[in-house]
Amino acid sequence: MGSDRLESFSDGVIAVIITLMAFELKAPATATWRGLTHLLPLLLVYMVSFTFVGIYWVNHHHLLRAAEHINAAVMWANLHLLFWLSLIPFATAWVGAQYGRPLPAASYGVVGLGAGLAYTLLGWMLLRANPHDTTLAQVVGRDVKGRVSTVLYLLSVPLAYVTPYLSYAVLVVIAVLWFIPDRRLEKSTSQV
Amino acid sequence: MGSDRLESFSDGVIAVIITLMAFELKAPATATWRGLTHLLPLLLVYMVSFTFVGIYWVNHHHLLRAAEHINAAVMWANLHLLFWLSLIPFATAWVGAQYGRPLPAASYGVVGLGAGLAYTLLGWMLLRANPHDTTLAQVVGRDVKGRVSTVLYLLSVPLAYVTPYLSYAVLVVIAVLWFIPDRRLEKSTSQV
Amino acid sequence: MGSDRLESFSDGVIAVIITLMAFELKAPATATWRGLTHLLPLLLVYMVSFTFVGIYWVNHHHLLRAAEHINAAVMWANLHLLFWLSLIPFATAWVGAQYGRPLPAASYGVVGLGAGLAYTLLGWMLLRANPHDTTLAQVVGRDVKGRVSTVLYLLSVPLAYVTPYLSYAVLVVIAVLWFIPDRRLEKSTSQV
Amino acid sequence: MGSDRLESFSDGVIAVIITLMAFELKAPATATWRGLTHLLPLLLVYMVSFTFVGIYWVNHHHLLRAAEHINAAVMWANLHLLFWLSLIPFATAWVGAQYGRPLPAASYGVVGLGAGLAYTLLGWMLLRANPHDTTLAQVVGRDVKGRVSTVLYLLSVPLAYVTPYLSYAVLVVIAVLWFIPDRRLEKSTSQV
Repeated sequence: MGSDRLESFSDGVIAVIITLMAFELKAPATATWRGLTHLLPLLLVYMVSFTFVGIYWVNHHHLLRAAEHINAAVMWANLHLLFWLSLIPFATAWVGAQYGRPLPAASYGVVGLGAGLAYTLLGWMLLRANPHDTTLAQVVGRDVKGRVSTVLYLLSVPLAYVTPYLSYAVLVVIAVLWFIPDRRLEKSTSQV
Repeated sequence: MGSDRLESFSDGVIAVIITLMAFELKAPATATWRGLTHLLPLLLVYMVSFTFVGIYWVNHHHLLRAAEHINAAVMWANLHLLFWLSLIPFATAWVGAQYGRPLPAASYGVVGLGAGLAYTLLGWMLLRANPHDTTLAQVVGRDVKGRVSTVLYLLSVPLAYVTPYLSYAVLVVIAVLWFIPDRRLEKSTSQV
Repeated sequence: MGSDRLESFSDGVIAVIITLMAFELKAPATATWRGLTHLLPLLLVYMVSFTFVGIYWVNHHHLLRAAEHINAAVMWANLHLLFWLSLIPFATAWVGAQYGRPLPAASYGVVGLGAGLAYTLLGWMLLRANPHDTTLAQVVGRDVKGRVSTVLYLLSVPLAYVTPYLSYAVLVVIAVLWFIPDRRLEKSTSQV
Repeated sequence: MGSDRLESFSDGVIAVIITLMAFELKAPATATWRGLTHLLPLLLVYMVSFTFVGIYWVNHHHLLRAAEHINAAVMWANLHLLFWLSLIPFATAWVGAQYGRPLPAASYGVVGLGAGLAYTLLGWMLLRANPHDTTLAQVVGRDVKGRVSTVLYLLSVPLAYVTPYLSYAVLVVIAVLWFIPDRRLEKSTSQV
């Protein structure tokens, strides 16, 4: 079996996740600026979450394209990653509603961490299924941004108990990290 | 007609089902551990349901790939399977909200049973459409895990009236059954 | 441009429509038979709607496969059909909640009628884009079941004001009509 | 990497957006004409939004097909466009609920403007990734309707503060603009 259907199924799940988050943005009960500014925190978290899911989509695609063989372990590792991604809308909605409190921010970090580890695990399972694939070995082995992101997600959890705004700063750093057009990194890491 | 569009349509439906279940996990009204632990039962059932839908996706894919010809009966049998799968989020939400009561647990078992029988029926319809396909005959004929699962789902229904926790134990057994890396089984049953 | 992306986009929309309807089946507040039987009307309408959307999916696929060329008019006619199909969940939820009243039943009939006419229009636009395609001309020209369904949907609207149950009987007739394994019809109409 | 997966992912997101909007059309609590007419404003806005998303789908498809190469910048520009499109259901629901007030109408215009600019940006990124592609240069360079729409969206924002109905008139003009079968324009602009 090729990676085609795995990709298209994952695309479907990610497309639903990324879109449904926007549906948490309920129309305000009043047609006032106050009603709109009330939504602002959720809109900001949504933008960050949209970016994260987008990053996963881009990298997921890159990772699977590099692999030739798919086995049951890869399929389960992929479902495991999708499971964590499917929790992002929950964390997004909670942070959007209670952005000043530590627990939602910490939960967001835990979900991000889970997704990061699941992505790493998927890479390992792909390597095990394709032991002689040097391209894949490079993609998985040099995923610097992925590792840094995972560490930052881990940091964001305790930081939420100092102040949740520190966690949010870390999340923004992660998002920005993936936008940096570092040509040297782009050649060696999992960029498209 | 090939099985391509049937697969991609089924993928789409399954992707929506698996993702929307997570949207039952509403952000707690308070940013407290108490609010989070309140969600724990639903999160646990969601994990089991996610696994079940994942199992169906993996096997569905395997089954359709084994078949060469598709006819109207196969299409309807496939829609019938998707119908039962589409009820899983309902059963999940109900068990998550009322996990201590027998009826939701029994309903979950009935939906699982319905999906299991629909999957078996789909296998038969595929065999009828591809009478000389020996690969398909093997996939359908040796689907041991599928038959055991169906029997276990059937058992989980009356067990819910002893105590729903017995039903949940059976559901976990079904999920674990599909993870066991039984090499011998993997060769003879519908594993990827 | 081929019909591939049109098909896959339509598949996506139809997959979301068919799946989201099930999400109207909210878990009852109590874990009792009474709570479950309260959902029965909605479950029954859902089954009928699932069947209708399934019928459209099967036929839509058949129609597009028969056509070679796609133009802007076909794209808009296709979106027009998807628009009507997207109203089916609304009509389903309304009938499920107020099944004893004429207006929801009549609305269901209007939505069904709109979808039926939109499907016919799509057939004509495809014929105009493929004037010398005899296979397509046969598929569109001999769509007996499609025409009968449209007339029946039209009938169901005034019948709802006699009693909504007459409308529901007509809807069931339409659904059954598409299941009849009439070999002769199957050769001459838009069956898979 | 080709544009295939970018297209299919975008299709998935757009399919979810276009379908979920219809789910804002909640079944009225009463089975009366009054209950139905209450939904009329939302239904009308939904039709306009459905048309807009449909227009983006058609043009997006055309734009990507014209391009040969895809890079990271194109992927991000595409996600940026999808982000704006994902806000359309929010704006639709708000206008549907508060159509007589300026702020929802202005918000709708801002979302439309954002999507229009994001689409233009995507065109530029595609041109940068495919500098010697004359077909693409023509599609992007002669996108008259796209530019006119963007200007009209921009106009609709201040007009909402004169009266929201002026904004709606402008939105209808935009929608109609894309239906006009101007043969000459069709050859030179981004029509299918």
